[in-house]
Amino acid sequence: MLLIGERINGMFRDVKKAIENKDKKVILSLAEQQIECGADYLDISTGPVKNSIDAMKWLVETVQEIKEAKLCIDSTKKDVLETGLSIAKHPPFLNSVSADPEKLTELLPMAQKYNASVIALTMDAEGIPVTCDKRVEAAAMILATACELNFPTEKIYIDPLILPISAVQESPGSVLKSLAMIKELDIPAPKTILGLSNVSQKCSGRNLINKTFLAMALAYGLDGAILDVCAEGITDTIYTSEIILNQNIYCNSYLTANKKN
Amino acid sequence: MLLIGERINGMFRDVKKAIENKDKKVILSLAEQQIECGADYLDISTGPVKNSIDAMKWLVETVQEIKEAKLCIDSTKKDVLETGLSIAKHPPFLNSVSADPEKLTELLPMAQKYNASVIALTMDAEGIPVTCDKRVEAAAMILATACELNFPTEKIYIDPLILPISAVQESPGSVLKSLAMIKELDIPAPKTILGLSNVSQKCSGRNLINKTFLAMALAYGLDGAILDVCAEGITDTIYTSEIILNQNIYCNSYLTANKKN
Repeated sequence: MLLIGERINGMFRDVKKAIENKDKKVILSLAEQQIECGADYLDISTGPVKNSIDAMKWLVETVQEIKEAKLCIDSTKKDVLETGLSIAKHPPFLNSVSADPEKLTELLPMAQKYNASVIALTMDAEGIPVTCDKRVEAAAMILATACELNFPTEKIYIDPLILPISAVQESPGSVLKSLAMIKELDIPAPKTILGLSNVSQKCSGRNLINKTFLAMALAYGLDGAILDVCAEGITDTIYTSEIILNQNIYCNSYLTANKKN
Repeated sequence: MLLIGERINGMFRDVKKAIENKDKKVILSLAEQQIECGADYLDISTGPVKNSIDAMKWLVETVQEIKEAKLCIDSTKKDVLETGLSIAKHPPFLNSVSADPEKLTELLPMAQKYNASVIALTMDAEGIPVTCDKRVEAAAMILATACELNFPTEKIYIDPLILPISAVQESPGSVLKSLAMIKELDIPAPKTILGLSNVSQKCSGRNLINKTFLAMALAYGLDGAILDVCAEGITDTIYTSEIILNQNIYCNSYLTANKKN
């Protein structure tokens, strides 16, 4: 299971402030915490700041003071993405491309250039699909375009885009079904990922909702998540799910044995 | 979701002792606790005692001092089952019949006589099947035999028999797949149930394993469980799963709103 820490994102107030004040300490502390909690990669997003190219450069350079930090460069802007990718010291993730052929043709070669893996969203120019079929159709189009562009599909993680249950309560059911169907699209099965916390946006009891949905999604074939990797019990849920799904050998000490630090 | 409390079972030392000493207090306290925690029914099993007919009679009479208590009469012996069913004041559950035609022909008419619902295990005279296909075959045979005997299939809960991950780590994967397939066997979909705690027999971190597997099973169509309904967080996992799966309307207070007491 691929774990990408979500916390270094300018959408969070503390990160926004740290970017504005060039406060390295806050960023480094968030990076260290997440790695200690088990993050394989750290998502890096400036959020809506004015000078986003500079902000991305500063964030990436700051986080890379931790030598082992692997990054997931996250932006909706091509030049901001390229800024991050071009200075990443380990092969990074590009987060994200959509199922829009124009975007794919623009961004997949860029990912290739920087040896980056890619998170690809099952949305097109028209927005996020509501139905399961449309999600799977978008996933198929992503994989087909990647093949045409000679981009290795094993470096693509498809994100079927979970919406908050407080707004669209059918979303988890549709996403679970989509996960199972996306896994059937190719051999070997395409990899899948979710931005987990979105399922509980504006809900009470967020962590319980996140953990419960995560167990379900893992049982439907989820391979990775962008998540709050330090949230109480979240990695325990992941390690336990891996044991239940026979992806890791059971022993009585599986919880401690699986801690990545 | 149907919740059957597992605690009044002679396999537990406190219950065994209470049966031996005819100690009503222990039994009544377990019954009250489980109802308060959200149990719809209480499983009643004497466990391996000498005079099991007398023990069943005493257990049922004791628990029924609580007027609203609904019972799930649990025994491998026909006469012990009948003892419990015949004095139950609310329509009870019969736990359990197997997919053995002889057993079905013997026990389904008895359930019918006492207006009982039935828990039917996907095992036959040869034992518990390892494969998913065999489980589903057994489920189909249970439903077909019920139809022949004019027993209403909507009163049958099929249990695909989860085995402990410490012994058979493939079991949860096979059971999840079986659940999905059993739901496809008929319209309306057959109901399913699991003896949840079995998944974590002889494991450390039992409650975490139980909760995590339960969320997965619910996402695969589980309708009920025999479980430790008072275990920390187990009903919260159930209510949260129902919300995530859109089986209950989301509101910010869904956890408190769903508490059954």
